[in-house]
Amino acid sequence: MPWLDGALVEGPTLPLDPADRGLTLGDGVFDTALVRDGRVIFEAAHVARLVASAAALGFPLDPAAVTAGMHAMAAGRERAALRTTATRGSGPRGLRPPPAPRPRLLVTAAPLADPGTAFAPLALRTTGIRRNDTSPTSRHKTLGYLDAVLAAEEAARAGADEALFLNTRGRVACAGTGSLFALIGGALVTPPLADGVLAGIVRGWILARAPDLGIAAQERSLRPEDLAGAEALFVTNSLRLIAPVRALDGRACRDGLQDGRIRRLADALREEVASHSPP
Amino acid sequence: MPWLDGALVEGPTLPLDPADRGLTLGDGVFDTALVRDGRVIFEAAHVARLVASAAALGFPLDPAAVTAGMHAMAAGRERAALRTTATRGSGPRGLRPPPAPRPRLLVTAAPLADPGTAFAPLALRTTGIRRNDTSPTSRHKTLGYLDAVLAAEEAARAGADEALFLNTRGRVACAGTGSLFALIGGALVTPPLADGVLAGIVRGWILARAPDLGIAAQERSLRPEDLAGAEALFVTNSLRLIAPVRALDGRACRDGLQDGRIRRLADALREEVASHSPP
Repeated sequence: MPWLDGALVEGPTLPLDPADRGLTLGDGVFDTALVRDGRVIFEAAHVARLVASAAALGFPLDPAAVTAGMHAMAAGRERAALRTTATRGSGPRGLRPPPAPRPRLLVTAAPLADPGTAFAPLALRTTGIRRNDTSPTSRHKTLGYLDAVLAAEEAARAGADEALFLNTRGRVACAGTGSLFALIGGALVTPPLADGVLAGIVRGWILARAPDLGIAAQERSLRPEDLAGAEALFVTNSLRLIAPVRALDGRACRDGLQDGRIRRLADALREEVASHSPP
Repeated sequence: MPWLDGALVEGPTLPLDPADRGLTLGDGVFDTALVRDGRVIFEAAHVARLVASAAALGFPLDPAAVTAGMHAMAAGRERAALRTTATRGSGPRGLRPPPAPRPRLLVTAAPLADPGTAFAPLALRTTGIRRNDTSPTSRHKTLGYLDAVLAAEEAARAGADEALFLNTRGRVACAGTGSLFALIGGALVTPPLADGVLAGIVRGWILARAPDLGIAAQERSLRPEDLAGAEALFVTNSLRLIAPVRALDGRACRDGLQDGRIRRLADALREEVASHSPP
């Protein structure tokens, strides 16, 4: 039973306007958050990013409405993935949005598998589909996710778990469903947003908190060969938190969670997540 | 009253599964066709392209079902824009599609303005957002249309009618809502599909029919400077047919419809369209 624009929807289907621009043009943004024991983990950061993404694409979102929808769907759930979708609302035929858009908010929840899979190691495979860093959409979770869908299928056919995207200039961007970090010379490095990267919530947490744990962390452009020479690689997102990369393009990688620094980071993140849940 | 999966929908909203991948991931394709006097103009080509695009993205569409939806919505309309949307259907959380997708088909119709606007000249403005020719999505009308939305807004703010897209290699791709043709050395040139271009229906008609009218026509990569030196430019799509370009990036262009060849082409296209309508 999803939540749509202020109320839980009765019945199995959404009553959606066929002119909703989210459906017709992918004109909207979304967020995926982790729910633990009824609480939305990193809630404030998720709400703020969704509102900022909508603003960057030119439509207003009320943070109080987003929060209300998330709360309604998180309540009573022990462990779930929360999906919040904000579309620009309805519009006439054509590309141009209405001058005063009335956005639509949808929140759904899906049960999440056993937390044991959170840190499962991944095999990545570089896709030939480039992340389009020339577009603002590369820095937001927009509804146009077909490149990631196609790259995920391609990775699976090649026996990998997930795609690695380079951008149009051949620099490393991100994994199919998360931010990429490389441990290089003892410091954590992740590509800057300008390289076509989403401002991941866990990514932001690591950049802010790693120094407190005695680990240097920085945003810096990465070439594919930088990854080949890295001491360890891992992918972060809001559901899996930190997933070590076990192989890249068929070559085995050193297990990042064997590295004391990355283990310390993962432990601190786990504690942070636990601290968001009620005692 | 739209048509959804075999029947006209009663009431103002669609009963849509909240897990529909068209809505959640832009995982689908669409088509825009012209209706005149109850007939879908270039119907067979529109149906075939939609089915081929879905197949290229990995999901099956029944051409008979697409045709039935188009007919149901075209019936009784004098002049309309028909929009056919095919999503991959519902799926579980995450990027990976279900192994046996059950696509969803939606057809809507919108009244079209006076045919007089069909050939209205356009001012184009080159956008900094590149058409991502590294992705298969650049060659299909997928539901992820936000780049075109943002570029249209940018063009409008600059006083232009529509965006011109280059691809990631700096070659000319297309206009925001149509294919681009340049008259160069007396021949019509349009970028090849590999440059990140949709196989436009009118584009295909011109490539096939121009030689019969004594006009050379070819697919060839174009650099921005090729456009500056062209004798005329025009944009084609299924609703406006042929729209001459009156200005590019603020520089006036020669009126293409003053050129005898382009006028001959436009007249032949108009006759072709009229021949699809009942007498």
